[in-house]
Amino acid sequence: MNSKIEKLIKQFAKLPRVGGRAAQRIVLALLQDKTGRAAMLAAALIDAAETIKPCSICGCLADSDVCEFCRDMSRADGRLCIVRDLGDVWTIEKSGVFRGRYHIIGGLLSAAAGTIPEDLNISNIPARIADEKIAEVIFALPNTVEGKTTQHFIINKVQGIARFSELASGVPLGGDLDYIDDGTLSIAFDERKQI
Amino acid sequence: MNSKIEKLIKQFAKLPRVGGRAAQRIVLALLQDKTGRAAMLAAALIDAAETIKPCSICGCLADSDVCEFCRDMSRADGRLCIVRDLGDVWTIEKSGVFRGRYHIIGGLLSAAAGTIPEDLNISNIPARIADEKIAEVIFALPNTVEGKTTQHFIINKVQGIARFSELASGVPLGGDLDYIDDGTLSIAFDERKQI
Repeated sequence: MNSKIEKLIKQFAKLPRVGGRAAQRIVLALLQDKTGRAAMLAAALIDAAETIKPCSICGCLADSDVCEFCRDMSRADGRLCIVRDLGDVWTIEKSGVFRGRYHIIGGLLSAAAGTIPEDLNISNIPARIADEKIAEVIFALPNTVEGKTTQHFIINKVQGIARFSELASGVPLGGDLDYIDDGTLSIAFDERKQI
Repeated sequence: MNSKIEKLIKQFAKLPRVGGRAAQRIVLALLQDKTGRAAMLAAALIDAAETIKPCSICGCLADSDVCEFCRDMSRADGRLCIVRDLGDVWTIEKSGVFRGRYHIIGGLLSAAAGTIPEDLNISNIPARIADEKIAEVIFALPNTVEGKTTQHFIINKVQGIARFSELASGVPLGGDLDYIDDGTLSIAFDERKQI
């Protein structure tokens, strides 16, 4: 295989959710395209890589020092949603269920992965709670051991200066009980609601 | 969402085998990476897009007028393998089962997709058979109606000047009969081998 093509395939294959075969198909499609998609993709990449950086307040990616969420005063509703990464912000935004402010911690505490508190964007959470008059901190971290560990760690740091909540656990909408794990089922029973 | 990030996600989402969610994860990984992967990917894309073009003989992608396969005299073994695209060449090369020359036709005849003979790289096949003293033309096109239609069309054009063969049909290695379609099973019975 041509070395330039090989190099390009290797770079695509390193991207998340792209395997070796998909990388080959992507590179073939780009190099055989006659509308200049490869050059357009390269230009968009360079433009974003040069201008996009983390928001100094919430850690979200932005092309200015402070992101659109933190600038938007209509979002100053006293609620701060703590998420793992920007992908989770996009998921929540798409649902339209929350219109307050976000705080992206950029990972989860993990003994296995060696992630310690200093690796996460959490040191300025107490200052944000005070400065932005946050009444409720909503944890929207993954519903896993690492997510809960991280949540407890943050709560211990900011105890007493705000109210805390976390997303409800249970059977997802459309969720067939056949496919629900025992842990979720157990929580769904424990937290059952009267109807 | 930031417009530059959104533009980049849209471009990734148009690539084969990459959906909207995967495109978001890819862009997040690239923009949060601190080792400059976005810039490296952009540079590799630009380098390949500017220098890679189809080989004038076989249609394979190369950074010179004639590709490495067509230049390699050890491959002049009298066999020409006709494939749909370069991805199929890579698959065959990886298996190591064939070391002759390739001819990439760049698609398949299809009434549904409106692909006509003039859209395919087939006009110079007779000249190649004569010039390169091809004794056997091996069809390695997809085992579909469109693949077989295209194969018959090419055979009609070059009738009499070479021997033709096609890949065997049957149950794949490790193939569980439960998962084999009726057509393949029927061929596998018809072409059963005595043991």
